[in-house]
Amino acid sequence: MAAPIALIQGASRGLGLEFCRHVLKNKPLAGVIATCRDPDRAVELRGLADQHPGRVTVLGLDVDREEDIRRAAERVTESFGRLDLVVNSSAMLHPSGKGETSLKEVSAQDLISTLTTNTVGPLIMAKHFAPLLRKGGGGFGQQPVEKANRHSGIIVNITAKVGSISDNGLGGWYSYRMSKAALNMATKNLSIELGRHRPKVVCVSLHPGTVNTDLSRPYHRNVPKDKLFSTQHSVNCLMSIIDTLNVEKTGKAYSWDGTVLPW
Amino acid sequence: MAAPIALIQGASRGLGLEFCRHVLKNKPLAGVIATCRDPDRAVELRGLADQHPGRVTVLGLDVDREEDIRRAAERVTESFGRLDLVVNSSAMLHPSGKGETSLKEVSAQDLISTLTTNTVGPLIMAKHFAPLLRKGGGGFGQQPVEKANRHSGIIVNITAKVGSISDNGLGGWYSYRMSKAALNMATKNLSIELGRHRPKVVCVSLHPGTVNTDLSRPYHRNVPKDKLFSTQHSVNCLMSIIDTLNVEKTGKAYSWDGTVLPW
Repeated sequence: MAAPIALIQGASRGLGLEFCRHVLKNKPLAGVIATCRDPDRAVELRGLADQHPGRVTVLGLDVDREEDIRRAAERVTESFGRLDLVVNSSAMLHPSGKGETSLKEVSAQDLISTLTTNTVGPLIMAKHFAPLLRKGGGGFGQQPVEKANRHSGIIVNITAKVGSISDNGLGGWYSYRMSKAALNMATKNLSIELGRHRPKVVCVSLHPGTVNTDLSRPYHRNVPKDKLFSTQHSVNCLMSIIDTLNVEKTGKAYSWDGTVLPW
Repeated sequence: MAAPIALIQGASRGLGLEFCRHVLKNKPLAGVIATCRDPDRAVELRGLADQHPGRVTVLGLDVDREEDIRRAAERVTESFGRLDLVVNSSAMLHPSGKGETSLKEVSAQDLISTLTTNTVGPLIMAKHFAPLLRKGGGGFGQQPVEKANRHSGIIVNITAKVGSISDNGLGGWYSYRMSKAALNMATKNLSIELGRHRPKVVCVSLHPGTVNTDLSRPYHRNVPKDKLFSTQHSVNCLMSIIDTLNVEKTGKAYSWDGTVLPW
């Protein structure tokens, strides 16, 4: 079997950077394609690439620009011709860095910016990278014995519990919540289209918990210490879920502990 | 009690126009504020206004432009000072008129256009008109005996069954489905924020069935005759639901037959 290849989008920091680290450490044969907006400024990511010579390809990609995504997919097609995993990691809470606490704070422009990065970006990633995932070797997840049910690739959209409509009891954070609800619909739709014919691609939404990243930083003091995860802990949990994914588990949202999140 | 006032957004045709007609006919005391992008071209709406002198105020409003919405809210504040019902009716299936049948047909630009009209527009409407609904007389819906649970106004977001993530078994129509899933989150969020303190505003999503309008026209030949509703039938059903709304029923999505739609 060919060495598995994972593409991590939003890899310069936070969960994305940690996914790269985790794959490089725990899947010694795997290659990593790490995308971020500005590779020149991604010092930690480049350091990681230097520590693992020949295993990391860093590509510049702004998820808000379809042209960037199309071009990156062309590069991956030329250099690798296939993919086993795509993780859509980058997201914003709100352009201001803080979620809306009331309707008065909502603006059309900020809502559209949030939807563009958190929702449109991941779907356009899926559009351009799905053909490569269909050519993947199924190097991530769990493959069943029956050939007909094997998957060639996996798409992971990082969602959030606050993107669950059923679970919403507090309100607020309009832009972020709406962007993640729409992303969950994208996951469901992708799981149907990419699961219809062989080779099948699995698609899930994963909730990482409340993680110590820039996105959640303004809220850390409100989070009990044992509920604020390190990126290492969160990615460990999420990779444990990814390791068990198969076509039976596609089209759902899972929390970091493996439980299914309601829509 | 003051005469109830309903604002119908997207009133030049389809369901919006029919909501105006229905309120004018069945609520003989009610006033109607009818908004549409281009009042000069809204011939049927202006005819309806002429048939009901003094009862209809037509305002130009493009739901894609927050400035239009803000200005319309100012006009309503000056002329009426309150509202009892807002119906967010306008929507598009996709800028091309046809929903995407596969991922290949998805484009960032078209997805953003669809989200802007179907999702951002209704939320920005709620932002600018919520203060007027808080001053409403509760002229629509069903008021309970206990004063504490009475509502002053109602927001109706027209959703679609295909916007239900749980119910999605077919896939496709990425932009439309995602826009309605995000709209449903907006409904839930609004119901929480506007239901927290008195005066309370009720907010629901309503699914009109498959209705004989421009939006669904390309698909009519695939719909069994008894499943393709006239705008009259659909609005009759939806107004029957609106007539029973109260604070207990806020924050949910209802189908034309009154059943609760899963998220």
